[in-house]
Amino acid sequence: MSATPQPLSRASVIAAHELIAPHIHKTPVLTSLTLSTLLGPNIKVFLKCENFQKTGAFKIRGATHALARLSDKELRKGVVTHSSGNHAQALSLAARTLSSTKGFPIPAHIVMPRISTPSKIAATRGYGAQITFSGPSAIEREAAVEIVQMETGAVLVPPYDHADIIVGQGTVALEFLSQVEEGLDVIIAPCGGGGLLAGIATVCEGTGVRVYGAEPMEGADDCVRGLKEGRRIEEVKSTTVADGLRVPVGVTNWEVISNPEKVQGVFSVDEEEIKDAMCLLVEKCKILIEPSAAVPVAVMLSSPEWREEMERVFEGREEVKVGVVLSGGNTTIDKVIEIFNRTRQLRL
Amino acid sequence: MSATPQPLSRASVIAAHELIAPHIHKTPVLTSLTLSTLLGPNIKVFLKCENFQKTGAFKIRGATHALARLSDKELRKGVVTHSSGNHAQALSLAARTLSSTKGFPIPAHIVMPRISTPSKIAATRGYGAQITFSGPSAIEREAAVEIVQMETGAVLVPPYDHADIIVGQGTVALEFLSQVEEGLDVIIAPCGGGGLLAGIATVCEGTGVRVYGAEPMEGADDCVRGLKEGRRIEEVKSTTVADGLRVPVGVTNWEVISNPEKVQGVFSVDEEEIKDAMCLLVEKCKILIEPSAAVPVAVMLSSPEWREEMERVFEGREEVKVGVVLSGGNTTIDKVIEIFNRTRQLRL
Repeated sequence: MSATPQPLSRASVIAAHELIAPHIHKTPVLTSLTLSTLLGPNIKVFLKCENFQKTGAFKIRGATHALARLSDKELRKGVVTHSSGNHAQALSLAARTLSSTKGFPIPAHIVMPRISTPSKIAATRGYGAQITFSGPSAIEREAAVEIVQMETGAVLVPPYDHADIIVGQGTVALEFLSQVEEGLDVIIAPCGGGGLLAGIATVCEGTGVRVYGAEPMEGADDCVRGLKEGRRIEEVKSTTVADGLRVPVGVTNWEVISNPEKVQGVFSVDEEEIKDAMCLLVEKCKILIEPSAAVPVAVMLSSPEWREEMERVFEGREEVKVGVVLSGGNTTIDKVIEIFNRTRQLRL
Repeated sequence: MSATPQPLSRASVIAAHELIAPHIHKTPVLTSLTLSTLLGPNIKVFLKCENFQKTGAFKIRGATHALARLSDKELRKGVVTHSSGNHAQALSLAARTLSSTKGFPIPAHIVMPRISTPSKIAATRGYGAQITFSGPSAIEREAAVEIVQMETGAVLVPPYDHADIIVGQGTVALEFLSQVEEGLDVIIAPCGGGGLLAGIATVCEGTGVRVYGAEPMEGADDCVRGLKEGRRIEEVKSTTVADGLRVPVGVTNWEVISNPEKVQGVFSVDEEEIKDAMCLLVEKCKILIEPSAAVPVAVMLSSPEWREEMERVFEGREEVKVGVVLSGGNTTIDKVIEIFNRTRQLRL
């Protein structure tokens, strides 16, 4: 099989879903009366829980799809990526799973900075990946990837800037729309590299479902700034607690996201708003999510621009059904305690 | 409509489910590769997430069913119970919901000890209940209930010791069995007053699905002791962290649970085992549960008697599919932090 043909379409996502469905969880959709009530009298919220997805995040969708499109010859040589986060674990598990189906080993090489947290290294190794350590900078990491490629012939599977990844991630929206019988008016999702948001937008285009992105203000609001300036921002420097979103939107992703026919807006929130939303989801909705996944909920709870947009678009509507993609749940209890303690102290 | 006829049967639970289905969530069933792997090579675990149920616990099932069986004349006079826990909130919301359908007010009177935690009082009041405070002892609470009944004519809806409650709670097993296409071999659930366990057993009898209960060792293992002694233990004194299980099994419930055709065994675990299981569910399964809901998982992870039973019954089986009812998620972040910190310190 070869790479997803351009331009990306709903049909490409449906094809991707057929390929990956046997290997991923169809994650549940939850509703929350408490959250809906907090958001206003006419908002009904649906939560697509990708924190319950295999490897704890939606990233397994794109990784599984990218592998499904490689030839056996390519797969035997293996795959490589640089990531210290959810994509690393996703690619590792996807390779292991496909390897069982194919009946031959598919090496997954993961380049990680030497300074990565030991728990993430252990988790990635636990999925059977071969880890190569590099220096922390992007240049050092890319150099390490090139060495792996030269030595092994492994195919690079990038974390977000690729058509196969985008349509793979888009499968979450196909499922989401099919799971909410009464129909969604809006889907909102976090925007880091933009694979998830671009995938959702590809599915929703022409359906009448509006698509919005959510970003942390703290340095990583490159998409909001880029849309204002009319060009893709190429670099991000951020220490946001939403660590999955500390990257600029990719080139292929930007083509989709900057098209107002596909994505109707991107909104940003500050660090305290993200932490408050995370606390609320844990305590009221009883689910553990990582900070990146709390960003869209923070937008809905705290962004005046978001509220204006909703009022403008849905003026007079009795009920607006908003779908939120909770992108992942990979955080530690220690991190949660740290965030909660800090938030509680600030409130006192 | 009148009370559920005896003896309780699967048909009574199906009838209950038809009555309550429009008013409750059909909660999702999750699987966890991590948990299954921890439990052994041939165990596959399914989690029925009643922590995502309305009011955060399965109790809304029994309460909604008990109300559905009252006449309009009775409902107008209202309902009363004594509870400082999940049943209080369940009865309050059930009354409010039925009140909207019926178009007349259904007062819910909740007797709570004056010393109840303010957050629980606030939550119950938030569902529209009228709260009457009492002294902390069972006698004082029951006296307060009688006064409410005399003054208002309200019907007592007990938390667990009643046929309508038992078959209401049993609806969780009907859903669970229908949601796991490949079929369950076992269901395990916490046992406090025994409404949930007796309800599940009523559904599973004759289906080949084995039913087990789980209790905290710390004082509240009245069911384990009662089964050994061949009689119902009538009193429980316990400070177990699993605060929903600090009650003896009810009279009606005991009739079901002590029947080995219906319940195949009850196992108990200590406090540290409960806390460890709770930590594991939060960190690995990404869901917030209350300590009582962690007890069956603790049994599966830590009870040698449970392991022996599984080996004895399923010897040589390639895969045993175990369904766990996660009964509720009503805990606070502060409580989680307290439990986690203590567990972490013990491990260091």
